Amino acid sequence: MTDLLRVSVEEHLAVSTNVLTGLGVPEGPARDQAELLLEGDLRGHASHGIRRLDMLAQRLRSGAVHAAARPTSTWTTASVLVVDGDGGLGPPVARQAVEELVAKVAETGVAVAAVRNANHLGMLAPYVESMASAGVIGIALTTSEALVHPWGGTRAMVGTNPLAVAVPVPGEEPVVLDMATGQVSRGKVLDHAARGLPLAPGDAVDAAGVPTTDAAAAVDGAISPFGGPKGYALGLILEVLVATLTRTSLGENVRGTLDPTDPSTKGDLFIAIDPTAFGSGAAAVASYLAALRATPPAPGHGRVLVPGDRARATRATNLADGVPVSQRTWTRARQIAADVPERH
Amino acid sequence: MTDLLRVSVEEHLAVSTNVLTGLGVPEGPARDQAELLLEGDLRGHASHGIRRLDMLAQRLRSGAVHAAARPTSTWTTASVLVVDGDGGLGPPVARQAVEELVAKVAETGVAVAAVRNANHLGMLAPYVESMASAGVIGIALTTSEALVHPWGGTRAMVGTNPLAVAVPVPGEEPVVLDMATGQVSRGKVLDHAARGLPLAPGDAVDAAGVPTTDAAAAVDGAISPFGGPKGYALGLILEVLVATLTRTSLGENVRGTLDPTDPSTKGDLFIAIDPTAFGSGAAAVASYLAALRATPPAPGHGRVLVPGDRARATRATNLADGVPVSQRTWTRARQIAADVPERH
Repeated sequence: MTDLLRVSVEEHLAVSTNVLTGLGVPEGPARDQAELLLEGDLRGHASHGIRRLDMLAQRLRSGAVHAAARPTSTWTTASVLVVDGDGGLGPPVARQAVEELVAKVAETGVAVAAVRNANHLGMLAPYVESMASAGVIGIALTTSEALVHPWGGTRAMVGTNPLAVAVPVPGEEPVVLDMATGQVSRGKVLDHAARGLPLAPGDAVDAAGVPTTDAAAAVDGAISPFGGPKGYALGLILEVLVATLTRTSLGENVRGTLDPTDPSTKGDLFIAIDPTAFGSGAAAVASYLAALRATPPAPGHGRVLVPGDRARATRATNLADGVPVSQRTWTRARQIAADVPERH
Repeated sequence: MTDLLRVSVEEHLAVSTNVLTGLGVPEGPARDQAELLLEGDLRGHASHGIRRLDMLAQRLRSGAVHAAARPTSTWTTASVLVVDGDGGLGPPVARQAVEELVAKVAETGVAVAAVRNANHLGMLAPYVESMASAGVIGIALTTSEALVHPWGGTRAMVGTNPLAVAVPVPGEEPVVLDMATGQVSRGKVLDHAARGLPLAPGDAVDAAGVPTTDAAAAVDGAISPFGGPKGYALGLILEVLVATLTRTSLGENVRGTLDPTDPSTKGDLFIAIDPTAFGSGAAAVASYLAALRATPPAPGHGRVLVPGDRARATRATNLADGVPVSQRTWTRARQIAADVPERH
């Protein structure tokens, strides 16, 4: 086990924000990025947490991320927002797009934002949750480096292409899906390889395309799509859908998340739908969710969950107990902060 | 093996159309429904083929399907179409909605149709393909009877909730996803039970919620979500999304596809997005798809496919060789046709 520290929300935000502003990012965008790193750690996804600060700092120093980006956005129709992030950090560009969508759907019922030239978004759930908290159904898609093999193929050619959806539920928390279309994350493969732990059958293939549970072999291979051919088909159609609407790269041409110097060539898509545009008389969602949560669990399982339940509980625990960060990651983050000139 | 007949497209359409018009359905809607039954058999999905004619005839006779339905549709905003199918057959209602969406997106860039009070759609792929053939990205969702257990649960509480997406590709066929979120279809479980064949591990659970490969035990149990917890989460969010926007039923309250007398309480959602609203400069989709199809297959696999490839090939073969229909299904369809008064 890695040594896990508990740090305060304020410390966590301060370290990230100071590094980013020290590297020339204005206060507002730095705060947006810092909050997304915080959300990764709060939800127990360290690979989307402050561990990424190192890569972000390298990318800012190399110019792959534009510290002083001036994103532009244009409503090409009443419902379509085309956004160019100007090479800036992902979270401020995406948050601005989501805000514009939420303001617009009250009038149009549905609106779509296509984002290009912006960097890594971090967790997708916070974007769709912010739409849901405004009473709006949110969908978020993004492409990623090719890490997943096509079904029946041997090489990584498809992104992990996550999908997030939040549906507001009157009177209670929204249902929130946030999942990648790979069976495991690249972070887990690397982590298991470093610690000599096996993967589960079906998680990955080796460099020859043969299924393996050896994490070290999987590092040079590819992640398997979740759910076999259906998960491959889902991941692929999301890749094609996002690339088509954002006019960005596909497959092995998607770059700029995992390396310090390449410009980001992925795309992001956000869809907002206002349920009030669809008529009155609500579906009985709350009682359905209650029935799901109350159904008897199968042998060997805990209680049945609704998408979003686990992340919400983990986040609440970590808000109370302190943000979990590994000793190594926290030491590294503070070291980066010390190396960066303080902004004044 | 069942005896497989090959019938002509004309015969297939004529039998269905005559039954439907004989039971009071006007010519146009009858033809729409007949074409969707044909597409099921042409694509090798007998459960969505003319085998359904029996149930449709029973539902028309009982009044659960309204033969002379007068669907209504209203644009509540410039981009939102709310459709009430008046209890009519699913395909004519859905085709009309899709046509209205395609006409609209040239102006709005995105449009959504929410359909309630319409019957079973059949295969979803033809609806999104018709959008793609107009250069428009199509998404189709529909809810179904609760046949799938929640992850970690024992009882069927979630629909098989299929998802179809077609993305047009300049200069070639579209990429077409059409998949249910259950690991197997109810039709396959029933078929294997009738023939004494086993299911695959992970396909289903028995009445106690214990995983089983015994198809007869699975008939009284539930289908498993594809891909474990992720597939469950996907199926569930689609159920909640569709029910919220169509204001229809959820879980065990979804009725009217598998029985002869219950009104249809499921909902359908169609989304159309016009790529030309998102700016010029196309993504390199065609060369990406070519690279996928050309990648070396993994040991034990045939060549890598792109979603839609297999269905397209199967359909072409069956158009050339004749529509495959089991002897029993064809005999039953002709018997129903003989029992129905000819329309004049």
